Amino acid sequence: MSEALPIITVLCPSAETAGSDARPSGLERIAERAEIRYTEASDLSQAVDGAQALFLWDFFSPAVKQAWPHTASLEWIHVAAAGVDSLMFDELSDSRVTVTNAQGIFDRPIAEYVLAAIFAHAKDFAGSLRHQQNREWAHRETQKVQGSSALVIGTGAIGRETARLLRSVGIAVTGAGRTAREQDPDFGTVIDSAELDLHVGAFDHVINAAPLTPQTTGLVGEKTLTAMREGAHLINIGRGESVDEQALIRHLQAGRLSRATLDVFVEEPLSQDSPLWDMEAVTISAHMSGDVQGWRDALAEQFVRNAARWLDGEPLHNVVDTAKGYVPSG
Amino acid sequence: MSEALPIITVLCPSAETAGSDARPSGLERIAERAEIRYTEASDLSQAVDGAQALFLWDFFSPAVKQAWPHTASLEWIHVAAAGVDSLMFDELSDSRVTVTNAQGIFDRPIAEYVLAAIFAHAKDFAGSLRHQQNREWAHRETQKVQGSSALVIGTGAIGRETARLLRSVGIAVTGAGRTAREQDPDFGTVIDSAELDLHVGAFDHVINAAPLTPQTTGLVGEKTLTAMREGAHLINIGRGESVDEQALIRHLQAGRLSRATLDVFVEEPLSQDSPLWDMEAVTISAHMSGDVQGWRDALAEQFVRNAARWLDGEPLHNVVDTAKGYVPSG
Repeated sequence: MSEALPIITVLCPSAETAGSDARPSGLERIAERAEIRYTEASDLSQAVDGAQALFLWDFFSPAVKQAWPHTASLEWIHVAAAGVDSLMFDELSDSRVTVTNAQGIFDRPIAEYVLAAIFAHAKDFAGSLRHQQNREWAHRETQKVQGSSALVIGTGAIGRETARLLRSVGIAVTGAGRTAREQDPDFGTVIDSAELDLHVGAFDHVINAAPLTPQTTGLVGEKTLTAMREGAHLINIGRGESVDEQALIRHLQAGRLSRATLDVFVEEPLSQDSPLWDMEAVTISAHMSGDVQGWRDALAEQFVRNAARWLDGEPLHNVVDTAKGYVPSG
Repeated sequence: MSEALPIITVLCPSAETAGSDARPSGLERIAERAEIRYTEASDLSQAVDGAQALFLWDFFSPAVKQAWPHTASLEWIHVAAAGVDSLMFDELSDSRVTVTNAQGIFDRPIAEYVLAAIFAHAKDFAGSLRHQQNREWAHRETQKVQGSSALVIGTGAIGRETARLLRSVGIAVTGAGRTAREQDPDFGTVIDSAELDLHVGAFDHVINAAPLTPQTTGLVGEKTLTAMREGAHLINIGRGESVDEQALIRHLQAGRLSRATLDVFVEEPLSQDSPLWDMEAVTISAHMSGDVQGWRDALAEQFVRNAARWLDGEPLHNVVDTAKGYVPSG
């Protein structure tokens, strides 16, 4: 009875900007078994002091690094995002703190966004909307999706779900990952990401679904873009930094690619000055490819389930290999 | 040697408007076995006189009715379209002329257009383009497609291919046709189209893929639109006349439906005055849902194959039941 409850600190976005989404739902289910401390980034150092667990509800916050000297008691950080790149820093990787993420929540929604991008482009829905805005009746020929080919860079959970969904509608899918292999259950062939430029020319759609790591930073650069097929479509739902944005802009301006569908950018929100906004061959969305209705509740529930395991002393789900920067698959 | 070759008249659009597409490709494959007479609508009466076959390459032309008194020798009309509604008239239905159509060519492309419409709407690509045009970074929640429900009106080849494609990505599909039934291989349950308003409220997506017949004219009218689910999405790839366009406009203006994706209209091209152009909840395309790259060559080749059968005295493919107005399935 007198034993102190474990402390879980919850880093929230400011209520000013996030409104009713500022706090996760459902934490009352663990409120009797832990002391829950809600905080914003500015007060994280005090709030995390003495805490055993930290829930990054404000999932892109880089505040943990600054508060690191105050985390002596910390055992576990859960990030309500699939990518942990904005959290990671050397002291954390070198520490014994367990990091878990939101793997699973975004897989299907992001796969659907990729398929939506492929179909919208094939059927030129952007062109139809522009003609509609000009009251133009403009018959065009469109593309058949069945029988087209896609390369999915990244063989984690999101890449795999994307591969499965694309294959279900008759797209021929290949993967690109850290190790080349054959007979992968979702991809069949997986090529070595380091040899992207040798293979990328064979595909109509090239999808970046890789986590941001040193190996994937700038992965789709000048060489890869040059090697892409004339008229190919690049889709980025991973991280902006995996694509050389300036090189991409040059290739789009030269008309070599038919489209880039971009949900992520080097700078977010995308700068008002970016030439990408005005390009008809570019589709921009605001880092939302995985955010289907109910996503916040799903993220909160996933944390609560993992927190219950932690309180029960059971192994955590979705443990990130902090040296690699993602949850190893299989 | 002295026997006269059978005559095949080919009704073409005017070279002025259609350019290099004015004549079908590949007819040289039957040129030694038939006299081929190319004509435009204004000269059809003379050109069809004495002909045994008529190929409507200008597939929406209503010119056959006027030329009917000159078709005494006619045995066969092939229409390079899936819908034969603009061709049909009583004297033709009552005659012994065989009518065939382009069934098969458009099934998969149109099914893909329907799936594209569902995905583009679920992920709000139209909203993303509008925000992009205003350089606005606007995060929104989108919809998951998996687990949503669709009613496909029309159980012909296009409706069936649409059902199969939608089911392959996890959409629950029901059909609507002339006879209610269970355990249809593509639809599972088929409801009676005459009872549309009793069932339509159960579906997120309502797709008109029916041929235009007296039964389907105005089928999606005030009663059906009123019975549709709040926020439902109507997709019309059949014929404009199957939907009461004025009633649809009222329901869209009232905000009851979340979107109408319309590839076909009562008047085509759609009138410059139509309020549909300006509605953000409307997606307009120019009667092109089936027209993927290569469609014209595919249509011409399909005719040539059927013409070879006809010249060989074999039964024709894709024979339309002229009383019903479509190719009966199964």
